[in-house]
Amino acid sequence: MRKLEEVLQGIQPIDQALALQAQKRLDHLTKPKGSLGRLEELARRVVAITGNLRPKIEKKQILLFAADHGVVEEGVTLYPQEVTAQMVFNFLKGGAAINVLARQAGAEVEVFDLGVAFEFPELPGLKQAKLAHGTSNMAKGPAMSRDLAVSALEAGIEAAEAAIAQGADLLATGDMGIGNTTASSAILAAFSGLPVAEVTGRGTGIPDGIWERKVKVIEQALEVNSPDPADPLDVLSKVGGLEIAGIAGAALGGAFHRVPVILDGFISGAGGLVATRLQPLVGEYLFASHLSQEPGHKELLKLMSQRPLLNLDLRLGEGTGAALAMALVEAGVRILTEMATFKEAGVSQEAL
Amino acid sequence: MRKLEEVLQGIQPIDQALALQAQKRLDHLTKPKGSLGRLEELARRVVAITGNLRPKIEKKQILLFAADHGVVEEGVTLYPQEVTAQMVFNFLKGGAAINVLARQAGAEVEVFDLGVAFEFPELPGLKQAKLAHGTSNMAKGPAMSRDLAVSALEAGIEAAEAAIAQGADLLATGDMGIGNTTASSAILAAFSGLPVAEVTGRGTGIPDGIWERKVKVIEQALEVNSPDPADPLDVLSKVGGLEIAGIAGAALGGAFHRVPVILDGFISGAGGLVATRLQPLVGEYLFASHLSQEPGHKELLKLMSQRPLLNLDLRLGEGTGAALAMALVEAGVRILTEMATFKEAGVSQEAL
Repeated sequence: MRKLEEVLQGIQPIDQALALQAQKRLDHLTKPKGSLGRLEELARRVVAITGNLRPKIEKKQILLFAADHGVVEEGVTLYPQEVTAQMVFNFLKGGAAINVLARQAGAEVEVFDLGVAFEFPELPGLKQAKLAHGTSNMAKGPAMSRDLAVSALEAGIEAAEAAIAQGADLLATGDMGIGNTTASSAILAAFSGLPVAEVTGRGTGIPDGIWERKVKVIEQALEVNSPDPADPLDVLSKVGGLEIAGIAGAALGGAFHRVPVILDGFISGAGGLVATRLQPLVGEYLFASHLSQEPGHKELLKLMSQRPLLNLDLRLGEGTGAALAMALVEAGVRILTEMATFKEAGVSQEAL
Repeated sequence: MRKLEEVLQGIQPIDQALALQAQKRLDHLTKPKGSLGRLEELARRVVAITGNLRPKIEKKQILLFAADHGVVEEGVTLYPQEVTAQMVFNFLKGGAAINVLARQAGAEVEVFDLGVAFEFPELPGLKQAKLAHGTSNMAKGPAMSRDLAVSALEAGIEAAEAAIAQGADLLATGDMGIGNTTASSAILAAFSGLPVAEVTGRGTGIPDGIWERKVKVIEQALEVNSPDPADPLDVLSKVGGLEIAGIAGAALGGAFHRVPVILDGFISGAGGLVATRLQPLVGEYLFASHLSQEPGHKELLKLMSQRPLLNLDLRLGEGTGAALAMALVEAGVRILTEMATFKEAGVSQEAL
């Protein structure tokens, strides 16, 4: 049995009974019941995911998957394809937004080359897992073979497993890939049946003319490939991307090992959506960090029944929103484990 | 001239020209223009407030003001009045939610007794600045004299000044005071003219019967006292609270010394509203950390033209939302000061 099958079959539901026990403790802490709102929800969820009533978050890891997209030859992006590789160098040197926000969050960033159209030398910090030099142009045929999609998913699973083996107890996903909002919108349109124009945004900030072309290219890709929404691997391989597959795999790997996974924005959301279509239980292990400026993201989160934690008008990717949300998940856990109870603190309970 | 007058007259507009310079740098960093949304806004605002193009946030301080409210004798709360003092002990022992979140944020918490109805012994960490044993019952007459309100405002100013003198470069406000949502709703109703029922919430979680009484008590307080919305000191003294005055003072003190001040939720918002009514320029120095579950908070933030950073269904106070938002303000500043430019990183700019 391939790794993917093993993971898909091995993912278990989270422990809802333990979540109720966590809420009982939250209700005894020195605060009005429920007054910490979503922090309490986060605490409950981490307890239910980890199976631990006193979870700790001690090692936070951001898995950043990079790959290129053949569809950029259609002229759908503002930046040239070489920016993907250039940004990988920037990540390794620590100068990108994700490096700054990860440092602040106390998280490590691991960069995986799953399919950048550039031959990197051996570089400290770069995880070489290249499966192709970018995908093929989905406007003309499948972005990749089904087999390649499975390999990319498994690379993502392995990335998560390696991080967890090193002690990571909170994972986050990030992406780099010029052209990947095009693939993400295509995935969302394929699964949802929504009109392409409604789920297609400005990416890095394209003007009207390029946006109109982007919509047409996605419509063409869906027509040429006819991805089957009931077959997530079909959608992923025909109109997806290698880094999106990696993100989906990381979500599966986290869920398989009962480690919470924070999704970044629209691209990570597309990966998360693929993962939940492959195995619906995965959704219980995922946290939506923020609502992106990409117009499709709201629909995507609705499909996943996820309510984002932040809404800061971000549209960068790399894992930046997920890095910011790590502090919130950690805050929920710390509230549960570090606050005093009414009894311990000698504080009177409600008078009713 | 009293301290308050000196501060009100000394507050200057923030430096908008410097904010534009900051945005120029933000536009040269290795990310699509504007793609970090509100983080960029936060960076610009901190630059304009501090007058420093490379601001640093190295010492974060949460000023937590505690006081009691005579109006609790009307039966408007779920918890008995002694909880205010009990929670002060909890803050000093480090077991409260604000302690947990401040530790995570790397911030110090300073607790000021401005008017708790309890005689504290000398306690390590407690700043004794008691001006009264709680306010008077505003349902029967003014909560405090105009002179007492000024003293409480000045205590808040001094709290901010002391923190800034010790090096604080980011302030946040917090509150503790059983009954203080009643005072905050009264302040909001007085300034806005909105119906009391629309701006009155459940506080710590009161049931329908107490909520109805709370609304009637606030209506009575407004009728008995006729606070003049054009005279912020009149509103503050007649239907306010000592800790709310302290928060307003801290906002003024921060603005006077050009240090950003993060407001917590509804109670801190009421203090912030008083401060901006005393001196409209103060608003430029304030950050609304989150949207509280208290229904009046949305209206209050609208009056102040503030967009909250977080929306996590919090309704605890103490400064908890502000502590969470500190990381966001800091993230904005770090993005501005730590990221590489396109040139430094050798990344191609947009192709257009």
